[in-house]
Amino acid sequence: MGSPHAEGIPLRELAARCGAELAGNGEVVIDRVAPLDNAGDGAIAFLSDPKYRSHLARTGASAVIVAPADAQGTALPKLVAANPYAAYAQVAAILHPRRPPLPAIHPTAVIAAGARVAATAAVAAHAVIGERARVGERVEVGAGAVIGEDATVGDDCLLHAHVVVYARSVIGARTIVHSGAVIGADGFGMAEDEGRWIKVPQLGRVVIGSDVEIGANTTIDRGAIGDTVIGDDVKLDNQIQIGHNCNIGAHTAIAGCVGIAGSTTIGRNCKIGGAAMISGHLEIADGTMISAATGVFESITVPGIYTGVFPALPHREWKHVAGAIRRLRSVLWRLRALERGQNDRES
Amino acid sequence: MGSPHAEGIPLRELAARCGAELAGNGEVVIDRVAPLDNAGDGAIAFLSDPKYRSHLARTGASAVIVAPADAQGTALPKLVAANPYAAYAQVAAILHPRRPPLPAIHPTAVIAAGARVAATAAVAAHAVIGERARVGERVEVGAGAVIGEDATVGDDCLLHAHVVVYARSVIGARTIVHSGAVIGADGFGMAEDEGRWIKVPQLGRVVIGSDVEIGANTTIDRGAIGDTVIGDDVKLDNQIQIGHNCNIGAHTAIAGCVGIAGSTTIGRNCKIGGAAMISGHLEIADGTMISAATGVFESITVPGIYTGVFPALPHREWKHVAGAIRRLRSVLWRLRALERGQNDRES
Amino acid sequence: MGSPHAEGIPLRELAARCGAELAGNGEVVIDRVAPLDNAGDGAIAFLSDPKYRSHLARTGASAVIVAPADAQGTALPKLVAANPYAAYAQVAAILHPRRPPLPAIHPTAVIAAGARVAATAAVAAHAVIGERARVGERVEVGAGAVIGEDATVGDDCLLHAHVVVYARSVIGARTIVHSGAVIGADGFGMAEDEGRWIKVPQLGRVVIGSDVEIGANTTIDRGAIGDTVIGDDVKLDNQIQIGHNCNIGAHTAIAGCVGIAGSTTIGRNCKIGGAAMISGHLEIADGTMISAATGVFESITVPGIYTGVFPALPHREWKHVAGAIRRLRSVLWRLRALERGQNDRES
Repeated sequence: MGSPHAEGIPLRELAARCGAELAGNGEVVIDRVAPLDNAGDGAIAFLSDPKYRSHLARTGASAVIVAPADAQGTALPKLVAANPYAAYAQVAAILHPRRPPLPAIHPTAVIAAGARVAATAAVAAHAVIGERARVGERVEVGAGAVIGEDATVGDDCLLHAHVVVYARSVIGARTIVHSGAVIGADGFGMAEDEGRWIKVPQLGRVVIGSDVEIGANTTIDRGAIGDTVIGDDVKLDNQIQIGHNCNIGAHTAIAGCVGIAGSTTIGRNCKIGGAAMISGHLEIADGTMISAATGVFESITVPGIYTGVFPALPHREWKHVAGAIRRLRSVLWRLRALERGQNDRES
Repeated sequence: MGSPHAEGIPLRELAARCGAELAGNGEVVIDRVAPLDNAGDGAIAFLSDPKYRSHLARTGASAVIVAPADAQGTALPKLVAANPYAAYAQVAAILHPRRPPLPAIHPTAVIAAGARVAATAAVAAHAVIGERARVGERVEVGAGAVIGEDATVGDDCLLHAHVVVYARSVIGARTIVHSGAVIGADGFGMAEDEGRWIKVPQLGRVVIGSDVEIGANTTIDRGAIGDTVIGDDVKLDNQIQIGHNCNIGAHTAIAGCVGIAGSTTIGRNCKIGGAAMISGHLEIADGTMISAATGVFESITVPGIYTGVFPALPHREWKHVAGAIRRLRSVLWRLRALERGQNDRES
Repeated sequence: MGSPHAEGIPLRELAARCGAELAGNGEVVIDRVAPLDNAGDGAIAFLSDPKYRSHLARTGASAVIVAPADAQGTALPKLVAANPYAAYAQVAAILHPRRPPLPAIHPTAVIAAGARVAATAAVAAHAVIGERARVGERVEVGAGAVIGEDATVGDDCLLHAHVVVYARSVIGARTIVHSGAVIGADGFGMAEDEGRWIKVPQLGRVVIGSDVEIGANTTIDRGAIGDTVIGDDVKLDNQIQIGHNCNIGAHTAIAGCVGIAGSTTIGRNCKIGGAAMISGHLEIADGTMISAATGVFESITVPGIYTGVFPALPHREWKHVAGAIRRLRSVLWRLRALERGQNDRES
């Protein structure tokens, strides 16, 4: 667990800062968050999933964050919030703040003469920033990160070690990019010509909004002619692949290992489960939820939950089922024949 | 979009250089490509997919590239080509050429004394080139890229920032490797011995042909004893995993997120859709097409299109279907019982 | 194939060092391993899979490693072992040892003043080691690798080029991490609040055991509050994603492209096939095997083999089957109607 807050913060102040209702002793000093079942003196824990209600009575925490319905479940000092997990997120950020980097450029960093790096930015060892790139206020550029020519990184961004931002990419404010992510590589575009491939130059950009988070080793390709666009407050987990000319709407969250082929538009406030695969040139409606490991091959115009997964079975059972699946057509034929026979008898 | 061509090129010259037929005014000067529906003065656009035919009449482009069947669809100056997308690829490359890097070795690059780097090569900041490695003419080695000992990189290759080439790997001419790709890591080889694992040394190489393109964060493992081989003109998208001792035939194209387990041979001119998964020790015939998200667990000897995807459905519908799938065997039994009953009645 | 052993080793000595039974001339000198069908003078080859038995009689190897049942299949000098593949792994490691790195810190490496790096460690060019990090005896840190503040790397570890270890991560002894792997990035944790996301600070660590191997571009996220734990002797292939708070039991092996969502516990000695996808908050029993490309959405309490893959078919056949699957529910209804009709007739 991250280091505790140096002096701690009274519960009363936490309540005020996250907009939750205070119940009980507001003077208790809290210096860290902890899980309900492993919290000690000075810690605050939260209950969001009713499955863990039994932990509430037994917790060793000094205070808890609960929903109104659970407020009676403990005599501890508490924050009561309609959305305890959101309140917890705020409290945790207050108690475990990210240490602001010292504004400094490491002597081993290589910054082109024509790059514009804000005086408040921090650039770590071996980072490389190309010609005419712009790096905003308070940006943190991790060790070995590479920012290409003419790229723009907005204020307060955090690029972890080894992030690669290709030339001309644009990243909004307060965006976090984790190590190994590659922003703006060429899209997968080529023309077939008598059995050989001719590369189609990829001339567009990647344009990323503000308050975005991009996971480790995720890749987002530049557009072929136009741009690939990632909206504000989009959250991308690790090892996601987003093809050229995709457009991901604001507030959409995508779990790890998802692949989205080129030119697909995902709406706003969508949620896409891990390892889902979405074909190219589709439109997915705002607010759509795609289950994990689901393949999507047609546009979705009606929001809802969509699933397409063959259920895992004990292998022996699966073999029979997989065999039966191959014979499904004949099942339909045979059914029809039987129905016809029955009809004949009944007529 | 990439910067336009400084002076522009007359359409007549573009026609000659890409082997297309000129129709209309060949003196119009073209300085960039653009999409049909967003093209202005000086731009050339193309029509390949008949779905976009309606854009042709309304385009603001100065010239277009079309198939013979669409030549009557516009009075604009045009290039007429049997394969308009291939002609577009050539025209785009002419109008938006990659700037040749200045042959120079950045002072922060670390090059072993025994490495042989051509005088025409460009090596960017913080790149590392190991002992006895050979880097060919006009090669561009991106920032932070690492080329291991005894590795070979052929003429005119482009290794983007942070590419890692393990020791002894071989890369042919004109090959492009995108950031984060890892060439030649150990294959996943270990022997089980009473519940523990013994690592099997991975002693082979990765041998990559010419005119290959390898996407961001793609990984290709070295062979266990023999080599892993990627043929000429193979195109690999991002985040592909190729296991040890695989052999990918020339001109094959593989979309993002595909996994190919060890010792599998893929034929020439195959096309493999995104997120497909191919088991180890298989042989896939030349010219085979595998659909996206399809698992392949047996060799394919007859070329054709192969698919294996559970169709995505609204979640509620899927639950019923998934439940029914588990009962498929009993469906077959019950059908047989009904058929037997009918036969009994009929006999 | 890796370079042969300088002087070679008598077969008798190999037998002694790997605990196999010697049969035939123990004085024959072996200097390398090779595959049965491509082995020459001085090479030793092995037969493990009976499928390749026909190669045994014709091999050009100087000696072979075989199971007792195959000992009569050749007159060559041989090592007889109950587990020939495990014996081969040992012999290959003896004949092709990893060259120990020279203990040295490259002048371009950046090591924080408060880091503790063992005098026997080797740190390559452009590596970065943060404040208070500890790097054990004989550790090899590859070019450009980044070890965060307060991280610990145990004795005899090998971190290949461009590995990123986030702050506070812990890695045990003798663990190998391949290029592009990212250890300890933030987990995918955020609270939804009226359509926007609030980041949940990720405060835990990644704790990796000893004798682990982690493949290229694999990502392991730090815990949200507690730790993400990888047990001893766990083997992870390339491009695996392991979410926050997962716990992977000792000796478990996971093939490439697998995704494991957060808070899932995988038992000991499990084997997980490539591209499998395992949901979050599950428990998988010790010794469970998951087939390739299988989605697991419920805990597994009974060890065994579990599979869930839609079998790949020629596309035309698949279209009919996929259509029939959508009609499965009506199949069940119609069956029931027919059965009822038959019962009526029979009653």
